[in-house]
Amino acid sequence: MKHYRHFEDAATVHALVEEIQGRHGCSYEQLAERLIVQLRDYFDGSHYAGGQPSRFQNVGSGQVRQRYLVALSGGIDSTVVTYLAVRAVGRESVLPITMPARPDDESVGLAALVRYDLGFSEPGAPYIIDIEPIVQQHMHAMSTLSEPQLHLGREHASQALEQKMRSGNFGSRVRVAVLSDLQRAIRGRILGTVNRTEYCQGYGTKFGTPISYDFGVLNELYKVDINELARVLAVPEAVRDALPSTGYFAGQTHEGELGASIEEQDIFAYLLFEKNMAPEEIAATYGASAEFARVIQYRFDVSEHKRLLNGLQPQVRLASTPLRL
Amino acid sequence: MKHYRHFEDAATVHALVEEIQGRHGCSYEQLAERLIVQLRDYFDGSHYAGGQPSRFQNVGSGQVRQRYLVALSGGIDSTVVTYLAVRAVGRESVLPITMPARPDDESVGLAALVRYDLGFSEPGAPYIIDIEPIVQQHMHAMSTLSEPQLHLGREHASQALEQKMRSGNFGSRVRVAVLSDLQRAIRGRILGTVNRTEYCQGYGTKFGTPISYDFGVLNELYKVDINELARVLAVPEAVRDALPSTGYFAGQTHEGELGASIEEQDIFAYLLFEKNMAPEEIAATYGASAEFARVIQYRFDVSEHKRLLNGLQPQVRLASTPLRL
Repeated sequence: MKHYRHFEDAATVHALVEEIQGRHGCSYEQLAERLIVQLRDYFDGSHYAGGQPSRFQNVGSGQVRQRYLVALSGGIDSTVVTYLAVRAVGRESVLPITMPARPDDESVGLAALVRYDLGFSEPGAPYIIDIEPIVQQHMHAMSTLSEPQLHLGREHASQALEQKMRSGNFGSRVRVAVLSDLQRAIRGRILGTVNRTEYCQGYGTKFGTPISYDFGVLNELYKVDINELARVLAVPEAVRDALPSTGYFAGQTHEGELGASIEEQDIFAYLLFEKNMAPEEIAATYGASAEFARVIQYRFDVSEHKRLLNGLQPQVRLASTPLRL
Repeated sequence: MKHYRHFEDAATVHALVEEIQGRHGCSYEQLAERLIVQLRDYFDGSHYAGGQPSRFQNVGSGQVRQRYLVALSGGIDSTVVTYLAVRAVGRESVLPITMPARPDDESVGLAALVRYDLGFSEPGAPYIIDIEPIVQQHMHAMSTLSEPQLHLGREHASQALEQKMRSGNFGSRVRVAVLSDLQRAIRGRILGTVNRTEYCQGYGTKFGTPISYDFGVLNELYKVDINELARVLAVPEAVRDALPSTGYFAGQTHEGELGASIEEQDIFAYLLFEKNMAPEEIAATYGASAEFARVIQYRFDVSEHKRLLNGLQPQVRLASTPLRL
């Protein structure tokens, strides 16, 4: 039986995962349908306010059709969003774009697999936009500035990590800038791909992916939900088996960074921010680590400023308790 | 006497400007003090939530001091914000950064004048970061993609304009990406510089400047307020005399684009979105153009999605009616 670091008893973990997955009151096939309906509704109404068409509708050469834009990293979240969008509005109205920022980005292959599986093969469509030159240009420009904090020596592991985090964050913001430019050119709407677990943990870049969007799709779903959605949507196994990662550098995983399994991450997010339990109460009730609960509570508190930006943004709404701000 | 295009009578314009400027119930010297106090309060409390210091506090070499970051274009808004920030927390805690995106950007000289006037002269500080290579890199990459809408021919004036708008918007987002990177490296907080008039008109780039920030400074102020603040703060006349512009290309001005003077722009924003009057009511009461009021109302409606992002963000609050969302 799998050992869980922050729970005395694995059976408690399984029971809580069941509780999380049961909270929708429907099967994952039905949940997928609910998401698809909301994606279709937003698309149909996604002309700007008042039902008026975008004033950029006819810019460029002739008729421009409306499309959903997805920053498809090849991770499970953006993949599930792509499958849902295709089911909702049809492949010809979805543009999944992969924007690698480093040559060893292993997600490019997974993203290509996703597009292949879904039959994306429009000749010359901008499925891959290489943002590495832009990120390199920026990091080089910064390294020539004389602010001491900007030249992080590579001799210390923590400084090398900081450098990777900075270039990773910069890449996330460039992706939003590129998608936004495409959005204007082709009259698209950007779909958000952040899940509730990582949203609570503070993963996601302010003004960058995956928390900057026109319409959020997975904001109310935990990772164990998304795994099940991936199953019912028949997402390729290679994508479903990969460990969640920011993709900022090879080998980064949330599981390794937090020291907790996906199930535990979900459970703590669920108990703290959906059932609004205190760390001590969680420890006493479930034989769980109060200390780890406090770590997650701290991450939630210091990342509040990121979630404030989306407090009023449109997103898929499900029956579960919305995230308090 | 100056002629106003959208009012029958210039005296009405003058009376309404007086009403706008009188709504604070205090002098502009006192208003400046109120803004300065709020800037100081946010700075003192601008550690992350719960009074806990940022976890990036000691990244880099040694002690990192907290600073306000301003994208200083040399326009009146970012200039006034820079003067207010210096008055609030001292020059050593403010970093005004100019990020030109095109070689003929006339604002670089004005920004240099502002820094000179305020005594910014830290050796090697990153006062100017050239983002032109990044914008060029992107626009070139997009032009090689085969989406027809991405190759806007330069033969038509409207398409050349669209190209300029796209690269201008992209530059605005790159500025936010650069500031955000600096923010992490030096523990800064980004000040927003959008004014209420342009916010209502939909100027400002989603996920870009001047509407992406940690703390908004001018959100509740009209252009005629900011002109007066510039006067009491002794902003150089060259800055005060320049016409408001996105800076996207040489010669662009809001006045030319909208076909309305600054006073008229302010008045329509004030009557429509602060006094919540309908276009017909404005026309009947003030001998004004209902048609122009409808143009501004339309711009407001189609740009709502941009303001939603800031609905919960911290900003300077004044006594006037907050913007409805």
